Amino acid sequence: MTANTPEVLPSYVQGGWWMPDEAAAAGAAVIRDAATGEPVARVTSEGLDLSGALEYARTAGQASLGELTFHQRAVLLKRMALALTERKGELYELSAKAGATKQDSWVDIDGGIGVLFAYSSKGRREMPNGQVYVDGAPEILSKDGSFLGRHIFTRLPGVAVQINAFNFPVWGSLEKFAPAFLAGMPTLVKPATPTGYLAVHMVRILAESGLLPEGSLQLVSGSVPGLFEALRLGDMVGFTGSASTAEKLRAHESVQTGGVRFTAETDSINASVLGPDASAGTPEFDAYVKQLVAEMTSKAGQKCTAIRRAIVPAASVDAVVDAVTARLAERVVIGDPRAEGVTMGPLASLAQRDEVLRQLGRLVDAGGTVLTGGAAPAEVRLADGSTGEAGDGAFVEPTLLRFADASADAVHEIEAFGPVSAVLGYDTIEEAAALVARGGGSLVTSIATHDPATAARLTVAIGAYNGRVLVLDRDDARTSTGHGSPMPQLVHGGPGRAGGGEELGGVRAVLHHMQRTAVQGTPEMLTAITGVWHQGATARPEGTHPFRKPLTELRIGDQVVSGSRTVTLDDIETFAAFTGDTFYAHMDEEAAAANPFFPGRVAHGYLLVSWAAGLFVEPAPGPVLANSGLENLRFVTPVSPGDAIRVELTAKQITPRETDEYGEVRWDAVLKNQRDELVASYDVLTLVAKQ
Amino acid sequence: MTANTPEVLPSYVQGGWWMPDEAAAAGAAVIRDAATGEPVARVTSEGLDLSGALEYARTAGQASLGELTFHQRAVLLKRMALALTERKGELYELSAKAGATKQDSWVDIDGGIGVLFAYSSKGRREMPNGQVYVDGAPEILSKDGSFLGRHIFTRLPGVAVQINAFNFPVWGSLEKFAPAFLAGMPTLVKPATPTGYLAVHMVRILAESGLLPEGSLQLVSGSVPGLFEALRLGDMVGFTGSASTAEKLRAHESVQTGGVRFTAETDSINASVLGPDASAGTPEFDAYVKQLVAEMTSKAGQKCTAIRRAIVPAASVDAVVDAVTARLAERVVIGDPRAEGVTMGPLASLAQRDEVLRQLGRLVDAGGTVLTGGAAPAEVRLADGSTGEAGDGAFVEPTLLRFADASADAVHEIEAFGPVSAVLGYDTIEEAAALVARGGGSLVTSIATHDPATAARLTVAIGAYNGRVLVLDRDDARTSTGHGSPMPQLVHGGPGRAGGGEELGGVRAVLHHMQRTAVQGTPEMLTAITGVWHQGATARPEGTHPFRKPLTELRIGDQVVSGSRTVTLDDIETFAAFTGDTFYAHMDEEAAAANPFFPGRVAHGYLLVSWAAGLFVEPAPGPVLANSGLENLRFVTPVSPGDAIRVELTAKQITPRETDEYGEVRWDAVLKNQRDELVASYDVLTLVAKQ
Repeated sequence: MTANTPEVLPSYVQGGWWMPDEAAAAGAAVIRDAATGEPVARVTSEGLDLSGALEYARTAGQASLGELTFHQRAVLLKRMALALTERKGELYELSAKAGATKQDSWVDIDGGIGVLFAYSSKGRREMPNGQVYVDGAPEILSKDGSFLGRHIFTRLPGVAVQINAFNFPVWGSLEKFAPAFLAGMPTLVKPATPTGYLAVHMVRILAESGLLPEGSLQLVSGSVPGLFEALRLGDMVGFTGSASTAEKLRAHESVQTGGVRFTAETDSINASVLGPDASAGTPEFDAYVKQLVAEMTSKAGQKCTAIRRAIVPAASVDAVVDAVTARLAERVVIGDPRAEGVTMGPLASLAQRDEVLRQLGRLVDAGGTVLTGGAAPAEVRLADGSTGEAGDGAFVEPTLLRFADASADAVHEIEAFGPVSAVLGYDTIEEAAALVARGGGSLVTSIATHDPATAARLTVAIGAYNGRVLVLDRDDARTSTGHGSPMPQLVHGGPGRAGGGEELGGVRAVLHHMQRTAVQGTPEMLTAITGVWHQGATARPEGTHPFRKPLTELRIGDQVVSGSRTVTLDDIETFAAFTGDTFYAHMDEEAAAANPFFPGRVAHGYLLVSWAAGLFVEPAPGPVLANSGLENLRFVTPVSPGDAIRVELTAKQITPRETDEYGEVRWDAVLKNQRDELVASYDVLTLVAKQ
Repeated sequence: MTANTPEVLPSYVQGGWWMPDEAAAAGAAVIRDAATGEPVARVTSEGLDLSGALEYARTAGQASLGELTFHQRAVLLKRMALALTERKGELYELSAKAGATKQDSWVDIDGGIGVLFAYSSKGRREMPNGQVYVDGAPEILSKDGSFLGRHIFTRLPGVAVQINAFNFPVWGSLEKFAPAFLAGMPTLVKPATPTGYLAVHMVRILAESGLLPEGSLQLVSGSVPGLFEALRLGDMVGFTGSASTAEKLRAHESVQTGGVRFTAETDSINASVLGPDASAGTPEFDAYVKQLVAEMTSKAGQKCTAIRRAIVPAASVDAVVDAVTARLAERVVIGDPRAEGVTMGPLASLAQRDEVLRQLGRLVDAGGTVLTGGAAPAEVRLADGSTGEAGDGAFVEPTLLRFADASADAVHEIEAFGPVSAVLGYDTIEEAAALVARGGGSLVTSIATHDPATAARLTVAIGAYNGRVLVLDRDDARTSTGHGSPMPQLVHGGPGRAGGGEELGGVRAVLHHMQRTAVQGTPEMLTAITGVWHQGATARPEGTHPFRKPLTELRIGDQVVSGSRTVTLDDIETFAAFTGDTFYAHMDEEAAAANPFFPGRVAHGYLLVSWAAGLFVEPAPGPVLANSGLENLRFVTPVSPGDAIRVELTAKQITPRETDEYGEVRWDAVLKNQRDELVASYDVLTLVAKQ
């Protein structure tokens, strides 16, 4: 192997590393360093058994993930994040070859690892420690409560194929992998060829960590011919890339009629609106300019979320142009990302550079005036810190355009996927909103304003055209995660041109890998199916008090039924005096009777729940460690002096923690009076020891 | 006009009734009575300005609905339901012409009205009285809390085009209209031509009621050529009908790349599984047979949700066949639905009858053995009660098939959309689940079993292939709403062959007409955008106590900040004695200190929230009428004797009721100790008078 024939990238399939044979390797595509044009790797998938890999995911991958609960998968995600963190230096080194500056690499590598941490946390905090996710409240479908409905999510039975873009090879892989893994779906990732070597190395680290359940992650280096023909109902495809490729893939029969789920996240003509209040001199103006320059130059503008349209008050156009131009000149150093001081690297490849310049030409032909930039730079900072010819480096100058006619089609439809943005003027808020909408569906629009009314009006007007809206002002300028950064907690995706899909958004993305099913049946059946006790299902009030049972012994349906306790006027007055809660409904017979909801003086709601605790508690030390909270309390029937209350407390949901010696137990609490009327219902949350 | 040239059905567009001109009417299609073949109506849309109707929805419809809140729309839905109820006799009369028995008509007409009632209730109980729907909890994106994320839903800015099937012309229209209306999207409904006269009359009643906001509902009688070309981003199509038509529509460019949302609900090869425990003689066996016969004959089997595959233990096949055959013979009287005693009417048209017989032939050719039925009956009960020739009535006998080879492709792929079902035997639960999955995605599968473990195992195994699963047993056989009945509370739709869409499911269906957007910004901005106060946004602790402000004066952010109160050991003992809650963490210093969460004896959580009420309450009669509940209580820092607590209570969300003199106010409650540590946080729910 010489410098001109770099090593062939392997694929990770069916539990091991696969390499093409020599004949196939001879015809492999050569990937080059973005800044220098040096060969980095060769890529081909010729001869790879793609159907075998898919089937391996559906069998071995589904089986191994099916043995784990949401929490167990979540714990593995965290351990994977730690394994990647330990070796992230290796990824940073490779990342520079892709043209990424240190900051760009941080977004890709640490950002990707951050997604794993976030999903690990979400999985354990917001999902049950089981395999069925319950959606929404029970629906009572018969008067006697014997027939209920509830929605559950169960994982899709196939493989999640993830086709990624070249710009963020690590983050792009991990942001799709994490929710699929948490859902229990095995992943087959197909990274974009130009930067696939980074994804390969990331998978290598994970494979070597020993943390991957069998078949849970595979990677194909190179193309995937025949992929869609091999997919079927139960499989899904998550695609990130160009709108035109998404269109072709979506049109495949497997998606159109075969039931294969397809979600696309494509680059879009995103906008950033400067509010009418944010004139030059305001902190919002400065934050707007700073953000625009950051979005133009970060990752050399190769971001699906980059700002392509700066929509500013007509009167502020000149000021924005001047400020942006000045900041670009002052701050941006183009060059090899390995050189000290470089703030903007090359595009991913010469082909990308040429494509950006071609689209830029179309924008100029359609009326765009180049205010700064507009070409490939003659000279850049080289790896050794000197200034020299760009050579085979894929550099493009940061380019700001201005469209005198803000309604020109081109600026809303043509994207130069590089450091290129255009400034458009608007007169009214309505016009600004209409210009945003002209993008035909965007991933994100930001709004710089310090006026909440403007923020609310614009957000509602453009909501339907955007997957995300960021409001920037003096109070979050420093803490904002930025226009261009999808966060694992928030949905990433957008309608129309943006692909029409959704990724991330915490548990939402996990559910995109699962099927929602309405389940109908008796409380007994819904309890068995969901793992959550439903009112009306079997309860066991006899035997040991459930507070004496550790998690290893406690079962849903274990119950304590209390004796009853009569409320007196004296009790109400005692409680009022003790708490200071002398609300008239408790203290003044006449005023209370005049209230539409009370027959006269009634007991405090807090008295009732306090007494209930006294009625159901088991005082001696035992496995119940603490009352951690209470949810969904509703007071239904008021309690008058002379009424007697009793409580039924039933173990409703048990969530052992994977990494602690205890877990959460949710108890169903029902208070009734001596006429068997429902007084109050709520959930009591407790921490209970495992042993 | 003679008996052979019935009246032309009008369309309801752009605020009025539209009729084709005479030339167009001359070429109109003739719709015939399903039982007698008598002409009922003529239909053509030739000359109708479809683009004008769509644009009218997008302008006038969006504007009028945009003036209303979710609750105001919900109130209108209830009033529409009442208007339809008042005149439902007119609909019943027309319904018989479509071949519907009284029971079939009840499902269609009362079922449709029931959807309006359900959405009216859901809209008021589960949605805010505003125009933005908030999804999920706030996400804190910066350590200092100055940058948050939250998800909102805003309505789509276009028109909801609803293309319905012929079988349930009233229900089918209303189940799509109700959620669209609640979301604030104007509807253009295109009923199926064979039974469109029922939808026209339903719209007539609504139009005459004066309850329809301008442009909120339009109807086109007849075909809609050029429809998809006229749609664009922001519009959506809800389609119910055959999988093949759905396929054609979905392939349109407007859907594929134009950003038009398309959701399909198609007939599917649904299944009903008899559990291994439910052998002959069990109540589950009887319920299973009864349900199967009901599903075969209800609406003459013309239901997307009908049971096509009866999957039963191999050992029970004969018993099921015998029982079903006997029950069909005993119970089913085929004939004109206007005749007394008729339990099964004709199919919708002779064309439908011929199509069903054709598909039945294919099933027989593929190995199906006809056990009963299998043809058009020679004689039926006529309208006058006599028995006579079927004539031009579109009758088909209820037909039960048996497939010796349960894995034959045909039985899982071919649907005869009439009173036709097939019995298949299985050996193991896994085999039963695999047979269900062979349907390629179904709207619903029912399971008859009294064993919760079997129900849970089967449900999880088939969940990914079904939009709904119903578990039938002795305890819900009488109260079950039935295999074939979509409920407004539960999602209707299914993966793959079932269309891949979702309808109904309460608020879920409303949200399908809206765009989810992640919003990022300061607490101040999120408060303005969502109408819900966020921690960190402006609060007004000064001036009048907020409990003294009626809804007309109260604003979110109005706040009371209490003084502090010190907890003593004596207080804890007093509270323990009063409530009976002598849990050791409050009473036993040594045992409490041994608990991992407590430094020693601590105050009861209920003491803290009770005191908090005493600290923030305003005792005299005023606009606050009652404490109706409490949510999301979390105890964070334990309170020891000597600690002092104080509370901040802030108006968080205000929901005036449209039909009452009061509304709900949700208050944000935060308890802190003397070190400013968070002790507890929760939401207090109250009822507050408007004046």
